[in-house]
Amino acid sequence: MSIDRVGVKNLSYPLVVRNKDNGVQHTVARVDLYVDLPSYFKGTHMSRFVEALQEWEGILDYHSFRKLLRDVQARLEARRSHLAFSFPFFLDQVSPKTNNPGLMEYECRFEGSLEEGKPNMFLSVQVPVMTVCPCSLAISDQGAHSQRAMVSIKARFEGMLWLEDLVQIAQTSASSPVYAVLKRADEKYVTEQSFANPKFVEDVVRSVALQLKEHELIKWFRAEVESFESIHKHNAYACIEI
Amino acid sequence: MSIDRVGVKNLSYPLVVRNKDNGVQHTVARVDLYVDLPSYFKGTHMSRFVEALQEWEGILDYHSFRKLLRDVQARLEARRSHLAFSFPFFLDQVSPKTNNPGLMEYECRFEGSLEEGKPNMFLSVQVPVMTVCPCSLAISDQGAHSQRAMVSIKARFEGMLWLEDLVQIAQTSASSPVYAVLKRADEKYVTEQSFANPKFVEDVVRSVALQLKEHELIKWFRAEVESFESIHKHNAYACIEI
Amino acid sequence: MSIDRVGVKNLSYPLVVRNKDNGVQHTVARVDLYVDLPSYFKGTHMSRFVEALQEWEGILDYHSFRKLLRDVQARLEARRSHLAFSFPFFLDQVSPKTNNPGLMEYECRFEGSLEEGKPNMFLSVQVPVMTVCPCSLAISDQGAHSQRAMVSIKARFEGMLWLEDLVQIAQTSASSPVYAVLKRADEKYVTEQSFANPKFVEDVVRSVALQLKEHELIKWFRAEVESFESIHKHNAYACIEI
Amino acid sequence: MSIDRVGVKNLSYPLVVRNKDNGVQHTVARVDLYVDLPSYFKGTHMSRFVEALQEWEGILDYHSFRKLLRDVQARLEARRSHLAFSFPFFLDQVSPKTNNPGLMEYECRFEGSLEEGKPNMFLSVQVPVMTVCPCSLAISDQGAHSQRAMVSIKARFEGMLWLEDLVQIAQTSASSPVYAVLKRADEKYVTEQSFANPKFVEDVVRSVALQLKEHELIKWFRAEVESFESIHKHNAYACIEI
Repeated sequence: MSIDRVGVKNLSYPLVVRNKDNGVQHTVARVDLYVDLPSYFKGTHMSRFVEALQEWEGILDYHSFRKLLRDVQARLEARRSHLAFSFPFFLDQVSPKTNNPGLMEYECRFEGSLEEGKPNMFLSVQVPVMTVCPCSLAISDQGAHSQRAMVSIKARFEGMLWLEDLVQIAQTSASSPVYAVLKRADEKYVTEQSFANPKFVEDVVRSVALQLKEHELIKWFRAEVESFESIHKHNAYACIEI
Repeated sequence: MSIDRVGVKNLSYPLVVRNKDNGVQHTVARVDLYVDLPSYFKGTHMSRFVEALQEWEGILDYHSFRKLLRDVQARLEARRSHLAFSFPFFLDQVSPKTNNPGLMEYECRFEGSLEEGKPNMFLSVQVPVMTVCPCSLAISDQGAHSQRAMVSIKARFEGMLWLEDLVQIAQTSASSPVYAVLKRADEKYVTEQSFANPKFVEDVVRSVALQLKEHELIKWFRAEVESFESIHKHNAYACIEI
Repeated sequence: MSIDRVGVKNLSYPLVVRNKDNGVQHTVARVDLYVDLPSYFKGTHMSRFVEALQEWEGILDYHSFRKLLRDVQARLEARRSHLAFSFPFFLDQVSPKTNNPGLMEYECRFEGSLEEGKPNMFLSVQVPVMTVCPCSLAISDQGAHSQRAMVSIKARFEGMLWLEDLVQIAQTSASSPVYAVLKRADEKYVTEQSFANPKFVEDVVRSVALQLKEHELIKWFRAEVESFESIHKHNAYACIEI
Repeated sequence: MSIDRVGVKNLSYPLVVRNKDNGVQHTVARVDLYVDLPSYFKGTHMSRFVEALQEWEGILDYHSFRKLLRDVQARLEARRSHLAFSFPFFLDQVSPKTNNPGLMEYECRFEGSLEEGKPNMFLSVQVPVMTVCPCSLAISDQGAHSQRAMVSIKARFEGMLWLEDLVQIAQTSASSPVYAVLKRADEKYVTEQSFANPKFVEDVVRSVALQLKEHELIKWFRAEVESFESIHKHNAYACIEI
């Protein structure tokens, strides 16, 4: 019986990731490296996966990822290679009034496979945002419950898709982005802006999906929103997949 | 834009699950309850999901799950309902020589959707097992590294598929099952039997997949094995999906 | 060299817990069972811990816990036994206006040791609550950010201390409790009440600590509040320990 | 009522850590920053903590950590500051026969407080190792069960204590270290060496504790070993604290 994926999983590895502005950043990834295994082979060579990663020494971007896909495929004499890097990615998020920079972390995943020379690439990101409940706002004499929510995007793409673009799509779809540093004037601004822009998870996921649908590099996507409701212990959730 | 899934996620709830021997057991589940939402509806009614669960009061089995699917679909006036229960499931595992019973826990998931009267049901289970490395055994003058490994099965099924059957498929595919209680004579037996039965993750996943393939109630499956290698920090992994 | 604690950790086990109203509830616990080991013993007998748990068959309360402490101490011929049960605990939380009941989960831990006949008992609970930010409320023309927060209490006690009492102390210290089911009228009430009652983590932790300090069965405590700020990705935190 | 610790928790931040060989490495940390709050202050200034971290721009070592402790104390006008950085730390672990280097990850924590000019510093590390069971080896005609185990050390220290030293103490106390890359000859060696060196968790924790006790920079420690038993689902555990 042939095996779809065999290899090493959950290997921790330091990584350099290329930013959209052509700079780079250091991070740490959880790495999975797999190949297919035909029915006539009993087993794969586990140590070769780790060697491929160690000799790669690349800066993670579209091109270096394809290079590693090819190298793993070749070393393991496989028909198909499959790799995934999951890592925190950092971007400066400037506060909206006092312009204080603050480093925000987004959990990301770069995943792809190579088969018969054809790559199949996925980029994923989790973007924390703020939601203000439209219903609570409408029915209450004062206030409305708000909460942190997580927008999760997984996109199959061709060409150069950037994490920065996905982060922006998520942030512009919510009641407000979240920030690392907010001074008094910023906090006033964020509160008022988010209350002027109340959103259900249904609203957020639709806005994310519409933007992803129009993106010319994106060939398939799944958009999810999970809102950690401040009035409940459970979460509100919405998902659009195309 | 229509939404594929909207509802409540990660609700914790006590549950009674029916066993294959027609007894029941008490456990606690993480529950997700979703419906689809057509483009002409702005939002869903989140509180109705929790009410449906609270008024369900069923013992979890194939029939009661379908009942809850229908009820959620009706209450939310939806075309499609989608539910998932994730819970620890307990089975007595008798030790192989001294016949001491010991309660073993298996992490399970019962998931399904209902659309136009047609249910689509999935059962998942994670079964801890033991693997002894055939390579290490073959090349070493003494010993071989062994480790705990996790067999994960997800199966789409029709009819009455039991968790007990999936557990058995996983256990018979490894070097040895694992146990809650092992006395001295049992430990000797388990050690010797597992060393007489060395298995790579590739061997385990193929054995699991072959048994799942032959099971008449199973229409689709994914079988995964993740071995927490005792000589590495990373894991060995294999997957067959049909 | 003598060993402070040796035994089995992270054993999953179904459990019955006694409620304050003298009813019982079924749940599932992660169990740790340890004893001390004097320097002149090479090792302990791991299988006896699991046997002690399996033969216990008690309903978890103060008395049965002491019984298990004594039994583990005796079976392992130890000077000191140490046990911990971590489990989800469920209580009905009635919605504030429409009086709809909804089952809420609280993560709990019952921990204790026995040495020279003297027990040392700890009860812990994690209670999700809602906080509305007083600063955001004061400076903004409209609204204020709110969020889910977690109150964590660990208390050393003598006599019969109930989880129900600790839950109430946490809930009455926050801007609002959280609920499983809220209808429209409830949501309006919770929003308005929480906005009439804005609290920093500092306010919440002080209120919790004051109530714990006055409780006659509590001999020591640690009170923590972690607020999942809706305007940040990081959390606000406060802790008082006595 | 005065508050023991108040501040920001679970902030993700890229970090540079100094190695023992005077090189540096890039990693990502979870950061907690707290101060005490006297009873006559209502609240602290949450944004100042993040600003202190952002303006710190240090390479993490003993001296820069003290500098950040002083800065947080000063900015928040506090009597006591308390910081913690948790991060993966990477070291090359050369395979024992073929001398192949392989990057191993160790989860670390640098924690400390400053009060009246007096620092109180803790270093923690989690080191995966391999254990071979002496009992299973003694009673079985062939083989012995082995598994991955985790050695956890937390040490209060004065002077320059290095993570590298704690890693070595853990590795020399087990049946064998674990590796990122092992070729065939290495796997044979590791298997045979570990089987020549069987260890219970009790043996491992005693060896770790003895070495920590003799270390002149270490003033207090807790040593824990958790063995992910390959024949069970639960773990064996031992702890010595001084």
